[in-house]
Amino acid sequence: MTGEFEIIKALSRKIPRVKGGVIVGIGDDAAVLRPAAGRQVATVDALVEGVHFDLRYCTPEDVGYRALAVNLSDVAAMGAAPRHVLVSLAVPKKGAEKFIEQFYKGLLPLARRHAVQVVGGNLSRSPSGIFVDVVVLGESKQPVLRSGARVGDWIAVVGSLGEAAAGLQLLRKLGRARALKAWPALCRAQLRPTPLVEVGKKLAGIATSLIDISDGLSSELAHLAKASGVSLEIDPSWLKWSAQLDDAAEFLGLSSEELALHGGEDYALLVTGRPADWVKTEKALRGQVTMIGRVVAGRGKVWRIDGPRRRALESHAFDHFRSP
Amino acid sequence: MTGEFEIIKALSRKIPRVKGGVIVGIGDDAAVLRPAAGRQVATVDALVEGVHFDLRYCTPEDVGYRALAVNLSDVAAMGAAPRHVLVSLAVPKKGAEKFIEQFYKGLLPLARRHAVQVVGGNLSRSPSGIFVDVVVLGESKQPVLRSGARVGDWIAVVGSLGEAAAGLQLLRKLGRARALKAWPALCRAQLRPTPLVEVGKKLAGIATSLIDISDGLSSELAHLAKASGVSLEIDPSWLKWSAQLDDAAEFLGLSSEELALHGGEDYALLVTGRPADWVKTEKALRGQVTMIGRVVAGRGKVWRIDGPRRRALESHAFDHFRSP
Repeated sequence: MTGEFEIIKALSRKIPRVKGGVIVGIGDDAAVLRPAAGRQVATVDALVEGVHFDLRYCTPEDVGYRALAVNLSDVAAMGAAPRHVLVSLAVPKKGAEKFIEQFYKGLLPLARRHAVQVVGGNLSRSPSGIFVDVVVLGESKQPVLRSGARVGDWIAVVGSLGEAAAGLQLLRKLGRARALKAWPALCRAQLRPTPLVEVGKKLAGIATSLIDISDGLSSELAHLAKASGVSLEIDPSWLKWSAQLDDAAEFLGLSSEELALHGGEDYALLVTGRPADWVKTEKALRGQVTMIGRVVAGRGKVWRIDGPRRRALESHAFDHFRSP
Repeated sequence: MTGEFEIIKALSRKIPRVKGGVIVGIGDDAAVLRPAAGRQVATVDALVEGVHFDLRYCTPEDVGYRALAVNLSDVAAMGAAPRHVLVSLAVPKKGAEKFIEQFYKGLLPLARRHAVQVVGGNLSRSPSGIFVDVVVLGESKQPVLRSGARVGDWIAVVGSLGEAAAGLQLLRKLGRARALKAWPALCRAQLRPTPLVEVGKKLAGIATSLIDISDGLSSELAHLAKASGVSLEIDPSWLKWSAQLDDAAEFLGLSSEELALHGGEDYALLVTGRPADWVKTEKALRGQVTMIGRVVAGRGKVWRIDGPRRRALESHAFDHFRSP
């Protein structure tokens, strides 16, 4: 952790102290933490200006919120409890202090809501563009992997699909103010996605595999199928989405089904489980869960039921190296 | 961890497996680790193209090496043992795969040398410029903080001073090939600094405070004085440096003493200890340690002995927000 002593000191006064686990937070060469109970999980995810966000339609607070949310979602996808956060920011000199202040105004309330503490970080100058890396450390007795799906398991989704992708198109097309006024829920799905941390914890011990839907359902199905060494069969007619999504899709000239199948950044959870555990799962999640298909024999293929037949479900990966 | 599946898969095949501690490495939503014994330390540090490195005089391998080295140094400065690494890279589309491959060619041998394992990471596209964040997790029975210096303690330095700063000036002035030929050791100090991990571990249990010298000795003295709530008095005539540094300083029209006092990025260690422990310290470090002064009463001041008097030692912080 280098320099920028005053900004870091000012920041560290604002960081709320939460229960346990932190022996030394911001300000030394490294944070000192009490080790995790059970297993530790660790993840890092980046938000890059011009790739993952655009300050024409999102605020620095949105960026701060989202940078933490996407990492909390990764921890949720392990069925783990998040505990500690490190934040690395590279920001152009001009407007740096203001950006950093507002960034934390978005990040800290979300941290508080999940009782996680910012324990360290780094500030750098960026010659051009804002770069954010957030690290979340968490703990779990028994993390749920993406490799545990077995033939015969059901496949289900928790959380909404397609809304964040529709929100992004609306924000780009209409600008922030008009888009937020016309479709607040869809814009919010894009700007302030809800990480399903509590859902993930409830699924630990029930789910056979778990992954968060950051790149779009079709891509995550492919990841899960490959990691588990099975094939997956889903019925798109089982997918649910809101009337708002239909509305917005019509306005945008897109298909709701395509948005739900391929639209990324909703941070919903994709889960598999044993048939005997379906009722327990529905009960634990109070009906928030939607079954969408089942795990079948095969090696890494994803099929979509199409009337009496099935055909390959193409995955339109949201890949930053291929996107324009 | 999102997308870029093939690059990540190709990479994860190259990551060497080291002893223990990793239950799931690269490829799931988060890494799964066996928790640390004792205390866990966690640090993140960034390297930004155009701020911390310039590809006109350093190679992608140098960047990979250095990105890990500066973080290992932070762990060394806690007297801790590094264990796990996460790497987040944002790279422009053009030349991305080649850069990433060479970056890891620099990083992985250093990881192997310290028996640390890369357990996760992130790859993003960058619209402009390369951004690297490396996270290192480590463990220690009793981490050494920067806040433990007490009045009467000696102050010492382990490792060379001023060489990395001189190396940087030489590389800028002469270009890589000529600078490396004329002053290989100084260029190496800049391009491939040695993180003093073993020294840090030996100092745990002896040192009263410990910090690594990333921003320059004068700045780190100021940080240590503030964190410990004491003042520090150093005698610049006790500093040692190589004949090469004198040579290069003359060539550059700079003063060796100024370089040793204010030049950053050597990743030497600044340490304090009780008088009774000096002999033990010298013995443990086999004479690699140089006493430079002592801890005195006061609140956060740094003094330099100047003949019969003392005067304030100005600290020229290497602060990325103020540097050009």
